[in-house]
Amino acid sequence: MEEPIRVGLIGAGQMGLWHARCLVHDIQQAELAAVADPDEDAARQAAALAQGARWARSHEAMLSDRSIQAVVIASPDGTHAGLIEEAAQAGKDIFCEKPLACDLAEADAALAAVASHGVKLQVGFQRRFDPAYKRAREVIAAGELGPVELAVATTRDPLEAGRPSAGKNAAMFIQTTIHDLDSLRFLTGLEVVQVYATASYFGEGSAEKDEVDTAAVVLRFQTGALATITNSWRTAYGYDVQVEVMGPRGKLQVGYERQTAVRHFSAQGVRHDHVYWYIDRFREAYRREMEHFIGCVARGATPEVGGADARAAQALAEAAARSLREGRPIDVPLPA
Amino acid sequence: MEEPIRVGLIGAGQMGLWHARCLVHDIQQAELAAVADPDEDAARQAAALAQGARWARSHEAMLSDRSIQAVVIASPDGTHAGLIEEAAQAGKDIFCEKPLACDLAEADAALAAVASHGVKLQVGFQRRFDPAYKRAREVIAAGELGPVELAVATTRDPLEAGRPSAGKNAAMFIQTTIHDLDSLRFLTGLEVVQVYATASYFGEGSAEKDEVDTAAVVLRFQTGALATITNSWRTAYGYDVQVEVMGPRGKLQVGYERQTAVRHFSAQGVRHDHVYWYIDRFREAYRREMEHFIGCVARGATPEVGGADARAAQALAEAAARSLREGRPIDVPLPA
Amino acid sequence: MEEPIRVGLIGAGQMGLWHARCLVHDIQQAELAAVADPDEDAARQAAALAQGARWARSHEAMLSDRSIQAVVIASPDGTHAGLIEEAAQAGKDIFCEKPLACDLAEADAALAAVASHGVKLQVGFQRRFDPAYKRAREVIAAGELGPVELAVATTRDPLEAGRPSAGKNAAMFIQTTIHDLDSLRFLTGLEVVQVYATASYFGEGSAEKDEVDTAAVVLRFQTGALATITNSWRTAYGYDVQVEVMGPRGKLQVGYERQTAVRHFSAQGVRHDHVYWYIDRFREAYRREMEHFIGCVARGATPEVGGADARAAQALAEAAARSLREGRPIDVPLPA
Amino acid sequence: MEEPIRVGLIGAGQMGLWHARCLVHDIQQAELAAVADPDEDAARQAAALAQGARWARSHEAMLSDRSIQAVVIASPDGTHAGLIEEAAQAGKDIFCEKPLACDLAEADAALAAVASHGVKLQVGFQRRFDPAYKRAREVIAAGELGPVELAVATTRDPLEAGRPSAGKNAAMFIQTTIHDLDSLRFLTGLEVVQVYATASYFGEGSAEKDEVDTAAVVLRFQTGALATITNSWRTAYGYDVQVEVMGPRGKLQVGYERQTAVRHFSAQGVRHDHVYWYIDRFREAYRREMEHFIGCVARGATPEVGGADARAAQALAEAAARSLREGRPIDVPLPA
Repeated sequence: MEEPIRVGLIGAGQMGLWHARCLVHDIQQAELAAVADPDEDAARQAAALAQGARWARSHEAMLSDRSIQAVVIASPDGTHAGLIEEAAQAGKDIFCEKPLACDLAEADAALAAVASHGVKLQVGFQRRFDPAYKRAREVIAAGELGPVELAVATTRDPLEAGRPSAGKNAAMFIQTTIHDLDSLRFLTGLEVVQVYATASYFGEGSAEKDEVDTAAVVLRFQTGALATITNSWRTAYGYDVQVEVMGPRGKLQVGYERQTAVRHFSAQGVRHDHVYWYIDRFREAYRREMEHFIGCVARGATPEVGGADARAAQALAEAAARSLREGRPIDVPLPA
Repeated sequence: MEEPIRVGLIGAGQMGLWHARCLVHDIQQAELAAVADPDEDAARQAAALAQGARWARSHEAMLSDRSIQAVVIASPDGTHAGLIEEAAQAGKDIFCEKPLACDLAEADAALAAVASHGVKLQVGFQRRFDPAYKRAREVIAAGELGPVELAVATTRDPLEAGRPSAGKNAAMFIQTTIHDLDSLRFLTGLEVVQVYATASYFGEGSAEKDEVDTAAVVLRFQTGALATITNSWRTAYGYDVQVEVMGPRGKLQVGYERQTAVRHFSAQGVRHDHVYWYIDRFREAYRREMEHFIGCVARGATPEVGGADARAAQALAEAAARSLREGRPIDVPLPA
Repeated sequence: MEEPIRVGLIGAGQMGLWHARCLVHDIQQAELAAVADPDEDAARQAAALAQGARWARSHEAMLSDRSIQAVVIASPDGTHAGLIEEAAQAGKDIFCEKPLACDLAEADAALAAVASHGVKLQVGFQRRFDPAYKRAREVIAAGELGPVELAVATTRDPLEAGRPSAGKNAAMFIQTTIHDLDSLRFLTGLEVVQVYATASYFGEGSAEKDEVDTAAVVLRFQTGALATITNSWRTAYGYDVQVEVMGPRGKLQVGYERQTAVRHFSAQGVRHDHVYWYIDRFREAYRREMEHFIGCVARGATPEVGGADARAAQALAEAAARSLREGRPIDVPLPA
Repeated sequence: MEEPIRVGLIGAGQMGLWHARCLVHDIQQAELAAVADPDEDAARQAAALAQGARWARSHEAMLSDRSIQAVVIASPDGTHAGLIEEAAQAGKDIFCEKPLACDLAEADAALAAVASHGVKLQVGFQRRFDPAYKRAREVIAAGELGPVELAVATTRDPLEAGRPSAGKNAAMFIQTTIHDLDSLRFLTGLEVVQVYATASYFGEGSAEKDEVDTAAVVLRFQTGALATITNSWRTAYGYDVQVEVMGPRGKLQVGYERQTAVRHFSAQGVRHDHVYWYIDRFREAYRREMEHFIGCVARGATPEVGGADARAAQALAEAAARSLREGRPIDVPLPA
C-alpha cells in the first residue's frame, strides 16, 4: 500500500467530526494526523478516532507540520476565508466546508491565496457527490429533458437543530440557500443572471436586526429558465431537501422522505418515518466528496468542486441578501 | 334518443343500491323500472332514485312485467342461483352479483336455464372493468412480462364491515377469495390445476363449525406458474386489494392505498389515509360493468364476463373449501 | 320529487361540455334546458346530452326564457364579465368559470350588477371542492400545523393542451396562476400583501408582445408567511398540480401523480402513469362544485365561492402581471 | 485502544469479500488477520484489504493460529457444518453465513460441537439487524398490531445473479426461503407448526431432478396465524424483499424499492430505479451484524442470532422440501 495522505482537521463540531470519521473509517488512502478545535473536548473526541492523531486548541502547529499534506476546514463560517489563506500559505491542499467566506471580498482574497500558492481547493458542496444528484445531472446534461425551463428547490432544517448564527441578515442565504444555489447551477449547467429574495422571521422573541429563518427566492437563468427556492430552519418533521427540474421533454425529481423501510397501517391511516438528520440523507455523498478530495491530493489532480463554483454560489447568496435588503430583484454578472 | 332498457333490481342492500345509482345516474341507456326487496325500506329507498320506479317485497311482479327487459340480482348469495333460473324462465337478461351460486351443482342448473332460455348473463366480477386491472391484463397479454411465473393476490375487508354469512365453511372462499381467483385467471390468462387452502378463525367467541375469517391459498396453473392469495375480514386499516404478477421480463403491481391526495408531515412522521370502502376502490369499475351489461342487452351482444368464467371461479372456490376440509391440495380439472 | 332547477349553459367548449355532463348525469336537482355557443356543433353536442334541451348560437333567447333560473358561463375568458352583467340583469343565478374578468375594473362592474340585481354568483374555483384540498383546509384551520409560514404551489399543463389566448401578458396569471392564488388563500386563510412575478416564453416562434408560458411567483402574506408558485404550459408528462403548506408543527402536501393503479417493474426500473387531463384530477371537484351551486340556487343560499373570493384572486393575478411588467414586487391592499 | 479481535475469513466470494470489507473499514475493534479460499485470486483480493493479512488456499493454518480468536465462514453452503465443527474444535468463535447446514442431522452435529467446545456462534440472518426489520419487530412485540394473524413475505433474486447449486431439491428453500422463514419467526415471535410448499422450474433447459427456481410456501403458526412466502431466482427488475405482517389493529409493511432518490417524469409516465443488489438493500444490516458478532466476542457475550434460531429455520426449510416431495402439508414439532 502507498503512503497515506496525512490530513489535519480544523473544527471538530458535528460536521468536522463526521469528516473525521470518513477519513478514518472509509478512506484507506487518508490518515487523520491532527485535530484542532478551541473546544478541547471536541478536539480530543475527533482525535481519538485515529491511532496516533494529535489534537490542539489551535491550528498553528498543524499548519507548520510538514508531514501534513492537506487540511479539512469545518470551523465556524466566519473563519473559513482566513483559514484558507493561512493553509494556502502553509502549502496545504484544502477541503473547506461551505461557505467559502462571508462575503465576496473575503472569498476573492482566499481564492487569490489558493492560486498564488498553487494548492488545491475543494468546497463542501456534497450534493454534487450524492448518487441521485449525480444521476440527475447526467440525465439533464444528456438532454433527456430538453433545455431546462423551470426548477423548484427546497432545503429545510428541523427547528431543533438550532441556528447559532441566525442573527445576521445573510446567514440563511449563506448557510442554507447556498446549497440550493449550487445544486441548481450543477443540475442545470446554467448561470443565474437575476435573483429576487424575500424572507421572514418566525423564531421566538423578536428578531434581531435583519434576522430571518424562512426565505423564498426566485432565480432567472441566462436562458430565461426560472427557479424558486424555499428555505426554513423551522420544520417539525425533519430534514427536507428536494429539487425538481423541468424541460419540455420531462422533469426530474430528486429527494426522498423515508428513513426506515417500514410503513404502519392502522385505523389512523398509513404512517412512515421521515429523514431527520442531514447526515442520514447525505451519508454517501459526504464519503464520496472526501474520497474525491483525497484522491485529487494523491494524484495531484484538481478537485471537481473548486473555487470558481464556490465563488459563483457565494455571489448568488450575496445577491439574495441584497435583494432582501433592497426589496427588488438584483442582476448578477455572469461568472468570469 | 332510443328507448331505454327497463331494468328491475332484485335485492336493494348496499351493493344493490349502488347498482341502482349507477343505472339511474350514469347510464342513460337504462331506466330503473322496479325494485324488489323483502326489506320494504330498502326497496323504497332504491326505487326513490328514479322517477316512476315501482317497488315491491317480492320479485314476482317484476318478472312477469313484459316491459322489463333485464334484471340485476344483488340479493343474498344463497338466492342467486334460484333467481337466475326464475329470471331466465321469464326471459330476462341477467346481471348477477358474484357468486353465481353456493355450489357447482346449483351453478350448473342456473347456467342450464340461462342457456335453454337464450338470455344473456353477466356476473359481477367488477375488477375486470377496473382501468388498472384492464391495463395490467393488456400488458401481460402483450407478453411484456414474458410467460407468467408467479403471482401474489390480497383481498382484505375491514373488521367493521361485518360478515353475516361467515358461519359457513366455504363462505370466505365463495364471497371473497373468488374475486382473487377470478382476477388471477383474468390477468394471467391461465387455468388453475391445483388448489391448496388453509384458514383460521380469529373472530370473537368461538367459531361455529368450520367458520373462518382468515385464509391463505396456493394455486398451481397449467404452466407450472404459482400464485398465493391471502384473505382477511379483520383489517383495522381499510379495504386492501392488491395483486402482483411476475414473469421473467418484469412484474406488474396493481393496487393503491390512498383515498385522498393529502399527506401530513409532523414530528410523528408522514401520514396519509387508506381506502376504506370497497366502492371507493372500484367505483369506476362498478359503473363500467353495468354500462357493459346494458350495452350488451341493447345491442344483443354477449357480455364479456359470463357463465363460463363464473363457473370456473366457483369451481376453484369450491376446491379451496375442500382443500381446507381435507388438509391437502386438490386437483382441479381444466374447464371444458 | 321537487321541480328541477332549469339551467342554461353559455359556452360549450371542453369545460362547458363537462359542466353539462355533470348537470345531466350527476345532479338530479338540475335540468339542462338550453345551450348557447357560436359554434353550432358544440352547442348541439352539449344539448344532445339532455332530453328536451334547446340549443342556439346566441345566449339571448336563454336569458329571456323565464323558466330558466340559472346559467353556467363557460365561454372564453374575455366574455365572462359582460355575460355576468347580462345574466344578472335577466335575473339569473350565475355559475361562472374563472376568471371573473380580464381586469379588476371589469370585475367590479360585473360584481356591481350581481349585487344590484340580487342574483347569486359562484366562481369556478373547483379545487375548493376537491376532497383533498377540503381536508387540507380543515387540518390547517384546526391549527394542526401551527400558523402557516411557507407554502409551495405548482400548476402545470401539458404542452399539447394548447393555449389560445397565450398572447396576452396577463393570460398565464389570469388563466392558470389564479388557481394557485385562490387555493393558497383558501388553504392558509391568509391575505396576500405583496406579489413578485417573473416569467419567460419558451414556445415556438418568437413571443408576441409580453407573451409568457412559464412563470415563477412569490407571495408575502399579511403574517409574513411566504409562498412560491411555479406555472408552465409546457409539460411533457401531464397535468401537474401540487401544493404544500408548512407551519412550525408540520406540513401538508396535496397532490397525486398516478392515474391508474398499476406499476410496471422491469429491467428499466419501475414505471407508472401520470394524470394527464385536468378533468381526471378534479372530476369529483367539478361534480361537487356544481352540486353546491344548484343546491344554493334551490335553497336560496349564498354560494361559498362568490364574488369576494373571485375579486381577491383577480387582484393578485393583476398584481403579478404588473410585477412582471415593472420588474419589482407589488404591494396589494387587503381586500375590503 | 484495546487490542483488536483478530479474525480469519473462510471463503472469499462475494459475500465473504463484503464481510472482509466490513471488518476492515467499519469495525475498529476487529482486525482481518487471515483469509482462506481455494481460489487464490479471491483469497488474495480479500487479504489485500487489510495491512498484514495473510492468505491461503486452505483454512488449516488459520485454525491453528492461536492469535486468531474468531472466524467468519462464508464458503459454499455444503461446507458450513463441517467448518463449524472444525472451528469449534480449534476454539474459535464463529460467525457462519446461513444456512447452518444442508440438513438437520448435519446441523445438530455442528451445534453439538459448538456446545461442547464452549465457543460462540452467530448465524448470518442479517435481516434481524436491518433497522426496518428491527423497528417492525419492536412495534409488533409492543402489541401495536394486536396478535399477528396473517403475514406475506417475498424474497426474489435477479435472474442474472445465477444460482450454482440450484440443481438440488432443497436448494431454494435452504438458500432463499430460509431468510423468510427466519424473518417471519423474528417478526411475529411465533413458532410454525405446519408447512406446505410447492415449486416450479422455469430455467433454461430441462430441470435436473427436483430442481426448482420458483416457490410458494404457506405456514401455519402455533396460534393459527397464517403466512405465505413466494420466492424466485428469476426477476428482471432486481432484488425484491418485502414482508407484511397484519393483526387486528393494523399491519406493517417492510421493504423498499428505490435505489436512487431520482424520479423521471416524461411522456412515458414516471420512472424510478429499483434496488438491484442484495448488498445495497442490506448494507447497514451486514455492518451491524458483524459489529454485533465482534462485540460479543470482545465482551464474552452470547450473540443474539445463534444456533437455536438457525436450527429452527433449518427445520422449516427442510419441512418445505419434504412438503414439495410428498405433495402435502408437513407438521413441524415446536423447537425444544
